[in-house]
Amino acid sequence: MAATSRSADTPRPGRRDSERPARRRLSVDRRREELISAALQLFSTKDAESVSIDDVAALAGASRALVYHYFGGKQELYMAALHSAAEELQERLRPKAPGRPLDQLAAGLTRYFDFVEAHQAGFAALLRGGPSNRAGEVGETIENVRQSLFTMILENMSAPTSNPVLRTTLRSWIAAVETAGLDWLEHRDVERPRLEKMLVDYMIALLGVAANHDPEVHELFDRLIHDQFD
Amino acid sequence: MAATSRSADTPRPGRRDSERPARRRLSVDRRREELISAALQLFSTKDAESVSIDDVAALAGASRALVYHYFGGKQELYMAALHSAAEELQERLRPKAPGRPLDQLAAGLTRYFDFVEAHQAGFAALLRGGPSNRAGEVGETIENVRQSLFTMILENMSAPTSNPVLRTTLRSWIAAVETAGLDWLEHRDVERPRLEKMLVDYMIALLGVAANHDPEVHELFDRLIHDQFD
Repeated sequence: MAATSRSADTPRPGRRDSERPARRRLSVDRRREELISAALQLFSTKDAESVSIDDVAALAGASRALVYHYFGGKQELYMAALHSAAEELQERLRPKAPGRPLDQLAAGLTRYFDFVEAHQAGFAALLRGGPSNRAGEVGETIENVRQSLFTMILENMSAPTSNPVLRTTLRSWIAAVETAGLDWLEHRDVERPRLEKMLVDYMIALLGVAANHDPEVHELFDRLIHDQFD
Repeated sequence: MAATSRSADTPRPGRRDSERPARRRLSVDRRREELISAALQLFSTKDAESVSIDDVAALAGASRALVYHYFGGKQELYMAALHSAAEELQERLRPKAPGRPLDQLAAGLTRYFDFVEAHQAGFAALLRGGPSNRAGEVGETIENVRQSLFTMILENMSAPTSNPVLRTTLRSWIAAVETAGLDWLEHRDVERPRLEKMLVDYMIALLGVAANHDPEVHELFDRLIHDQFD
């Protein structure tokens, strides 16, 4: 727990947060972010199991003790990195500019695959169930991202919020996207732009099916197609 | 399923398998299956965490010691139950009679949802990532079922076995089916026959998209539609 690093921004355990000047606090936050960022970089290329605290410390140019000081242990560091990645993904998925819903979806998918590519090992490990001992919190974090993506899509399409056929369809599409992402990381034998285009087409196709089963989805589908292609 | 006899078929720890007559061995296998069946019944309605060895023993009309004798512990019992459920699911998914591929798919989905309904709690827990500490073997078991379903669909459709666009599409569809199953267990606000019909339509729709991206899938798609509707 004791911080042995001599750098200026090492927090002193004996001192309470409230006593620290704002400048110092910012600097502490930045140091923490640097460590998370180093961890994410390692988790993106290696199994979480084979990343050590020493690896993270070395990559961040910090001491092992400093990593322990900020995170207490590898499990906490992993969770902090996961939360950070989840926030990043949600931020990436958020529409960046106004536009037609299906264009937004296409742009969002490109940013999604940028994320998948940037965090490949971590993404693959996570969505395959991830390392043991973390089912609860890890599962919740993934579920939160899915839920937030689901809500974004509904808003983006100005869609009805409690239509069962639409809910099933969107959740199925999100699962299809995740699986296509995993499959792409494994094989890389479909070019990304083609895959992204296919996934937008999947959405249109699945909504088309749902439209045949539900009048409210039919209305939504007609509007989306009209907005897009008329 | 609950056999209450503890006498004849109780294995004696001191005796080696090789010494047992065949009749006795069969009986041992049956006892084991009864315990697994009791476990599956409990896992289908409760979280694995809240099922105890005592619950399983009580339901099977066996002693706690007998359960430990056969399985060593709860973890082993859980894994045995999971393997048994996975085998059952694969058996259910196997085509039961010759028929057109999309009809086979529809019939397979009905049996899939029978399974989902019969094992609801266990199915939901598993596909949400499952209880902790089991990522490796549990994940593998789930992946095996997916892979076997994937292979069955390819065979059923007499489809090309190494087409990347088709692989991505079928894996995406399988993910969509799993998610729709989970969603259905959570909400039950879409009737099963409608949902099953939608999932067949999803397959046709996704293959239709894939057909636009790949000539080999286009051929397959034309053939399927021709077989089905001409």
